[in-house]
Amino acid sequence: MALMDTEPMSRLLKLAKKFNCFYLSGLHASDCRAFVVDGQQVGLVRPNVMKELLSFPQVFQVQPEYVQLNPAFRDYAERSAKMEEVLKEWRDGGKFVTLRGWREECYEVRAHFNTQPLLKMDRSATCLFGIRNYGVDITGYVMDREKGLSIWLQKRSPTKQTWPGYWDNMVGGGLSVGYGIHETGIKEAGEEASIPTKHLGKLKSAGCVSFFFESERGLFPNTEFVYDLELPPDFVPCNGDGEVETFELLPVKECLERVLSPEFKTTSVPVVLDFLIRHGYITAENEPNFIKIVELLHVPLQTIYSQPQRKYKIEANGEANNSL
Amino acid sequence: MALMDTEPMSRLLKLAKKFNCFYLSGLHASDCRAFVVDGQQVGLVRPNVMKELLSFPQVFQVQPEYVQLNPAFRDYAERSAKMEEVLKEWRDGGKFVTLRGWREECYEVRAHFNTQPLLKMDRSATCLFGIRNYGVDITGYVMDREKGLSIWLQKRSPTKQTWPGYWDNMVGGGLSVGYGIHETGIKEAGEEASIPTKHLGKLKSAGCVSFFFESERGLFPNTEFVYDLELPPDFVPCNGDGEVETFELLPVKECLERVLSPEFKTTSVPVVLDFLIRHGYITAENEPNFIKIVELLHVPLQTIYSQPQRKYKIEANGEANNSL
Repeated sequence: MALMDTEPMSRLLKLAKKFNCFYLSGLHASDCRAFVVDGQQVGLVRPNVMKELLSFPQVFQVQPEYVQLNPAFRDYAERSAKMEEVLKEWRDGGKFVTLRGWREECYEVRAHFNTQPLLKMDRSATCLFGIRNYGVDITGYVMDREKGLSIWLQKRSPTKQTWPGYWDNMVGGGLSVGYGIHETGIKEAGEEASIPTKHLGKLKSAGCVSFFFESERGLFPNTEFVYDLELPPDFVPCNGDGEVETFELLPVKECLERVLSPEFKTTSVPVVLDFLIRHGYITAENEPNFIKIVELLHVPLQTIYSQPQRKYKIEANGEANNSL
Repeated sequence: MALMDTEPMSRLLKLAKKFNCFYLSGLHASDCRAFVVDGQQVGLVRPNVMKELLSFPQVFQVQPEYVQLNPAFRDYAERSAKMEEVLKEWRDGGKFVTLRGWREECYEVRAHFNTQPLLKMDRSATCLFGIRNYGVDITGYVMDREKGLSIWLQKRSPTKQTWPGYWDNMVGGGLSVGYGIHETGIKEAGEEASIPTKHLGKLKSAGCVSFFFESERGLFPNTEFVYDLELPPDFVPCNGDGEVETFELLPVKECLERVLSPEFKTTSVPVVLDFLIRHGYITAENEPNFIKIVELLHVPLQTIYSQPQRKYKIEANGEANNSL
């Protein structure tokens, strides 16, 4: 178990702080406003986005404390359509760098994970509103007779819209409108790594990780459902959708070094750390910041937007009285 | 995987809220004050304890916003001795119910888990000051050919000072002064369940759970280091220290029912839930509140007392100017 030196271990807390940069510092800064839909906070808006919202008073009511989607919109369909109009205008006008990666694939926006969706929006746009995103990640591993536990990683294609050419988990995908969690895992395992059905019987749910990252593109409060998949030693993943450049099988120690390198996608790090903790490779004995790291793998995203003391005034008027 | 009905699953969130009753409601109530040692918050004090502290102005400085151990005490030894004097006076005077369970076994008090201890106090007293406690729990399990994954539980002795006669995890113990984490696990496995060394090679670190419970005895911000131990089907644990009434091996489904019953020790529930999540028995597909439950198994105890905006005035005078 004394697998790693002290030195790479102290780098782990740095990494946990990096993928939680917004949770640890941005969140309590005063320059973001709550984004409210149907009386409930569903996100956060940064000043650069706020400025642009003022040009759409029929769609967004900007208040000193929060900004809300016009409560006159009656339902999911109307909210989604009005939001899409604005997003497409921004995209076509070259407003935000993230919208250059427009996907034609939508994420649901909900007040809580298990409540009815309030609207949907293109997945490239959710970071502009700090909408909670959900994904599924599969850690593929092999019990190698000589090298011990070894983990499959993928190198993302250099043409990917986000994190091109970075190292990543074997299989991962966002939870899009219309797909279940386990279903997304199975779908992505086929598309990204061509894993045959006979091997997927061993796919095992193992929890979830939650963190809150920020980049120049926007805000990323992400929850990833994590699955473990033990693979036979002779199986080699093979990409089916052009989104992966290559796969590589690494013994635990080398895998950890790769994860700690700047070539690894920051927002995929939590899944590997959680795997190495659950499997006994990162322990309270070899990592001095063990508890803090475990806590930073599970930040309270499900309650972060539900401050009971806040009440949002819902005025179902047409054009709002905006104030910045 | 579709192991459980919907109904017992919705009971899981209730349970997660129960072992986090203080985190979810008490924490933001205004009637507790920060407990400060050497300029750093290490705990919280409830009004019933606060009242008694006023009788010891040489030991505690009571301020409107916080209460601090007299900063004139120079070091670990002096702080520990002064604290012990007060605690023994309370114990002998029958002041607090928790002190009836005086243990002659101390816990360290630290600002962070991996920083130098500031003082020690009897483990029965830490809940009076909301001091973070650390423990080690071992989930013993068997892969039964017929019944599938089965988990060993213990029934606590009816003479235990806390939670007498309740069901509990196979092995668990607090991290006392002078013992390491893994070491505590090994020690307790021997004392509580007479597990022979040959079986302990399979002991596997698997993370930690953090939660914040409150009872009539006091405040419990607890972190438990969790270990998994696969045992051979023919092994039967046997108590060696008189603290256990009996052990029982239960298939997963029955184990979950036991955990959901009022006979299970509330503060041991998180360890079982974490085990069942990591092993794929509680999943995002069969538990609608999955993410919320995972987040409630890892509440941010390591940062809860480190509010950077707070500054505690350290006055190294003898008798303090108390104000309530």
